[in-house]
Amino acid sequence: MNRPELTLPELTASGRPATFEVEAINERGEAVSTPIAGEHPLTIYLDKRELVTLMTLGQAPEALVLGYLRNQRLVPSIADIAAVQVDWDTDSAAVTTRRGIDNLDGKMSKRTVTTGCGQGTVFGDLMEEIDSIKLREDVRLSEDALHAMLDAVRRHEAVYKTAGAVHGCALASVNADNAEILYFVEDVGRHNAVDAIAGKMWLDDVDGSDKVFYTTGRLTSEMVIKAAQMRIPFLVSRSGLTKMGHDIAARIGITMIGRAAGGKHYLLFTGRERFVKSISPTEIV
Amino acid sequence: MNRPELTLPELTASGRPATFEVEAINERGEAVSTPIAGEHPLTIYLDKRELVTLMTLGQAPEALVLGYLRNQRLVPSIADIAAVQVDWDTDSAAVTTRRGIDNLDGKMSKRTVTTGCGQGTVFGDLMEEIDSIKLREDVRLSEDALHAMLDAVRRHEAVYKTAGAVHGCALASVNADNAEILYFVEDVGRHNAVDAIAGKMWLDDVDGSDKVFYTTGRLTSEMVIKAAQMRIPFLVSRSGLTKMGHDIAARIGITMIGRAAGGKHYLLFTGRERFVKSISPTEIV
Repeated sequence: MNRPELTLPELTASGRPATFEVEAINERGEAVSTPIAGEHPLTIYLDKRELVTLMTLGQAPEALVLGYLRNQRLVPSIADIAAVQVDWDTDSAAVTTRRGIDNLDGKMSKRTVTTGCGQGTVFGDLMEEIDSIKLREDVRLSEDALHAMLDAVRRHEAVYKTAGAVHGCALASVNADNAEILYFVEDVGRHNAVDAIAGKMWLDDVDGSDKVFYTTGRLTSEMVIKAAQMRIPFLVSRSGLTKMGHDIAARIGITMIGRAAGGKHYLLFTGRERFVKSISPTEIV
Repeated sequence: MNRPELTLPELTASGRPATFEVEAINERGEAVSTPIAGEHPLTIYLDKRELVTLMTLGQAPEALVLGYLRNQRLVPSIADIAAVQVDWDTDSAAVTTRRGIDNLDGKMSKRTVTTGCGQGTVFGDLMEEIDSIKLREDVRLSEDALHAMLDAVRRHEAVYKTAGAVHGCALASVNADNAEILYFVEDVGRHNAVDAIAGKMWLDDVDGSDKVFYTTGRLTSEMVIKAAQMRIPFLVSRSGLTKMGHDIAARIGITMIGRAAGGKHYLLFTGRERFVKSISPTEIV
């Protein structure tokens, strides 16, 4: 938020409705109108070159496209992007850069396909990058702020509550005993929700180094890597984690909390030194 | 099961342990040993050419590789595959074909990246193929068999119950009032679990055209397409569905049931003519 003035890209504002109604027959034989989550293909063209087709809920498609380009390390700076134009008639997002992208062929050819959810995508040097990441050591997350954030997240989960079948992600800022949700994005894919948050942070020049990243999804390797790439020291999930997610989190030293599903339960796995437990009344003598 | 004799591929049997124990601190400040799901990279080489890196639980890696090649339409027949050798020292699966693969470059270059979970993978002509698929109309799924299958699935969900963070898939055969689970696979990725089942079906020459496919995951477009590619007329999920999953299911005419989460609840969406509701006692006069 304190970067020098730069010209931000021109963006369409082509969010789609999040839910649609279809008819189903329930176990009592009754026809019931049922809300279901939207899912739309969105093909990204970077300077007219086809990159990828994402399936998305379509709530924040421009931010999703920006975050995808950022997290895949295809575009170094948001200042390089002149425009993102999302057109649902053609299910396409046309990205125009100001000066072209150096070595796009090289970046594309190194593209590998890995996953957290099964078959996600990362490009080239992503895994090699993680060892160079240093997360801030001078920031803390208190137990009270954690609970405040989880309460706030629950108030945001609109599509999930209505239609299910989506993952939610949030970026929160915290102080000693409270939390504020800066962004909340739901999508049919976990990776898309993360990428859309990354896109919003890029646009708004938000520094992740003292923030909390929350996801409803599982903490797989790719999720931990994406949080670390955004320099975020706190990663919280309602769900569980995988061994590789855990191993990478331990290596990076990210403060990772899983199974924060409501009530007061949670499990603190790695980066414990940044977490501050509240003193419970029974401990005060 | 009634194909002419053919030589099946040689396979390693390199399943990995499904869960690992790590220490976490719970909300009471206690150190607790916590089982978490495994997650391992597995890079597939087809005749020494690198195809993809999947992140997998690793329970049935050879079947996963076979199913991946089958569902991506990279190898036309299992008779074309001489061997699948999974080696966890190098996190690799070496696939050797008997005569090479025609036009592998063409198939690879048409590779696009779409998704159900966010950023999954499909190759080339997958979407175009679906309109040519005809599912059997002369098969039925009864409500009793549905409930019997859901009960059986619950007895299989070992990793999910222990560690969470995985999706389960099952293939079941059903008769008028009962169900038998033929395969059950859990993986960190939904797509992997589906592919592993497809690989087992390929190996055992199991015909999907009267079977039920169950998944804990959401019914997205890619999930529906994969079931239809296996000619499976019944698709059941514990979770919800997306609009595109619904639209493709309606177009193919697959019998799709969602929200079958336990108890007696379910929602029947498409292909309703294949579903036979039990007559409840109150309806018998």
